[in-house]
Amino acid sequence: MDNFKFHNPVKIIFGKDTIREIGSEIHSYGISKVLILMGSGSVKKNGVYEQVTDSLEKYGIDYVEQWGVTPNPILSHTEESLEIARKEQVQAVLAVGGGSVIDEAKAIAAAYYAPDVWSLFEKTYKATNALPLFTVLTISATASEINSFFVLTNDRENKKWSCGSPHVYPKVSIIDPTVQKYLPINQTINGGVDTLSHIMEFYFMGENEESTLSINEALMRTVIKSVDELVSDPLNYDWRANLAWCSSLALQGITSVSMGGGEFACHRIEHAISALYPSVAHAEGLSVLFPAWIEYVSSLKPHIFERWAKNVWEVDSVAAGIEKMKEKFKYWGAPVSLSELDIEQDEFEKIAENALLIGEVGKIKELNKQDIISILNIAQ
Amino acid sequence: MDNFKFHNPVKIIFGKDTIREIGSEIHSYGISKVLILMGSGSVKKNGVYEQVTDSLEKYGIDYVEQWGVTPNPILSHTEESLEIARKEQVQAVLAVGGGSVIDEAKAIAAAYYAPDVWSLFEKTYKATNALPLFTVLTISATASEINSFFVLTNDRENKKWSCGSPHVYPKVSIIDPTVQKYLPINQTINGGVDTLSHIMEFYFMGENEESTLSINEALMRTVIKSVDELVSDPLNYDWRANLAWCSSLALQGITSVSMGGGEFACHRIEHAISALYPSVAHAEGLSVLFPAWIEYVSSLKPHIFERWAKNVWEVDSVAAGIEKMKEKFKYWGAPVSLSELDIEQDEFEKIAENALLIGEVGKIKELNKQDIISILNIAQ
Repeated sequence: MDNFKFHNPVKIIFGKDTIREIGSEIHSYGISKVLILMGSGSVKKNGVYEQVTDSLEKYGIDYVEQWGVTPNPILSHTEESLEIARKEQVQAVLAVGGGSVIDEAKAIAAAYYAPDVWSLFEKTYKATNALPLFTVLTISATASEINSFFVLTNDRENKKWSCGSPHVYPKVSIIDPTVQKYLPINQTINGGVDTLSHIMEFYFMGENEESTLSINEALMRTVIKSVDELVSDPLNYDWRANLAWCSSLALQGITSVSMGGGEFACHRIEHAISALYPSVAHAEGLSVLFPAWIEYVSSLKPHIFERWAKNVWEVDSVAAGIEKMKEKFKYWGAPVSLSELDIEQDEFEKIAENALLIGEVGKIKELNKQDIISILNIAQ
Repeated sequence: MDNFKFHNPVKIIFGKDTIREIGSEIHSYGISKVLILMGSGSVKKNGVYEQVTDSLEKYGIDYVEQWGVTPNPILSHTEESLEIARKEQVQAVLAVGGGSVIDEAKAIAAAYYAPDVWSLFEKTYKATNALPLFTVLTISATASEINSFFVLTNDRENKKWSCGSPHVYPKVSIIDPTVQKYLPINQTINGGVDTLSHIMEFYFMGENEESTLSINEALMRTVIKSVDELVSDPLNYDWRANLAWCSSLALQGITSVSMGGGEFACHRIEHAISALYPSVAHAEGLSVLFPAWIEYVSSLKPHIFERWAKNVWEVDSVAAGIEKMKEKFKYWGAPVSLSELDIEQDEFEKIAENALLIGEVGKIKELNKQDIISILNIAQ
């Protein structure tokens, strides 16, 4: 079991009717003006916007609104938001939305004291401070509400890169699963696939870390069970809440203990796909890539993939595990082939090159361009 | 799934050769003088004392030593330690030892700005501040290194009570499992039983919190497996590390999510036992009480106890689960009857009265004096 550090200072407030607590939490930090960052407007329809602004007003907290964060949030919009934050001299950022909104909020918070946004991603500048960040989560998937990582697409250079800083841990994140009840079912499924992928990125790095491995198996089984239940009963609060909590835990730190920083080959290839094809949802790319990647690399570390097949999918071989995962994804309505995403074979080279832009891909097997093309061929 | 809040700001540094990091961590808080609190001297024999003081000296941190914390730490010694801390004007407390040392350190830290120590336990005074606390753990069992709770015995009044304050979360806790390699095996077993008990105190409160229940089952199975392995191979680092990490996680917050604050009847009765019989180790009391308590209350909530029997002990009935747990405890060398602890039937009334001193005992079944005596009779 390798040495590790574990530190996650985020305060989570979870459950029904909890959004109204946001004003008091922000007020307890002595903050009197925030930038509220939001997406396309769904938070006005589901009542979240009103709950948030009512709570802020109750505690005398002034706010500036910035709308229009896109799925796969982009650099140009982030720069615009940062300018507003600076001009309005806000004291904190409040992200109200899903992972995309929170990721852009983290970039704003970290870049507030930096020369510019993208230098953080290029690692030419390291954040030493950030605006305090608060979040009200409306879609459980990325776990951005509970960690210090954020992903942004540089829309001028077609780069979808990730960044991390301990300064952007949210101070408080509120997760009220009831606001996720009326999400289109495909967004729930995407959240489930994303969560499962995050856990797998750490799990397959394991050797003898029974504590982490068995927690990760428990979480994977719970995610699968929760999505199964929600597909037939989307309004079930308890399964909704279980899925939401698993989704946060997947990237909270507990799943990555002694897991060597995770594998993340599939995430890297997926980021290349959604950088080049922004209409592809992150989870759609992952549900296509993971079975193919496992098929390609599992013989290099058979023990952990066999354990996964047995303890998560209750089958006796890796091949049967892959098959069962694909069947499950199909049953949920998640794609299992690149052709379903309208990505053709003649584009594989471009995807592989994009994935390699930022350096080495993969740890269990370090993937070169030809390896990535082979995986994409399996996923075809 | 009930609403919950989750917040645990403790930074854990875990693994081989990590004790040397304590100086730099304390230094990073701008602290230049600490009270080092220790037990009977075993940290001088195993080299931990030297590693700690070398690291403090390297970072120019002055220190005052206070020795003599006992298992089941007592109020009178805590008051003496507090006086030293005040007289020497230390800026922080550094606990070097097991749960007892850390618990006393928390009491000192919280009482530093309070009129006296015991008023915190009587709840007549609430801490609003505390000295910063750092820990170097030498025995994994109580999880005090990762939470905000502490237990003290008022040796003038025979009260073993617990207290909690968010101000006493350790800033940093260092867990180097290698220092636990040469512990007498019964201390390892006690740590395992204690950990298992902590998880059970939350688990049996569960209904439909699949995420928390499945994590808790994963942890219980890992604890059992780890102790089994260490009984035959005490020097095995990986199992030692897995057990240590499970022990911390058992009371870190993750196991108690949506579990209604836990059951804690067995802990309350055990505290009465070790208040009256200080030679009884906490875990010995628990290993005797838990099978008896389960036998007494399980029919009131059969579903969760049946699930426990099936998923933790791989048997089909609660009775078989209890039997398997007792067999396991016996195999490890842990006691399963009060007679093994030299506690006779004519003392049961006194124990029951002591347990009820602080108010109601038990949630799944609220236990009155006669209930507690009945449980003690089963445990006889």
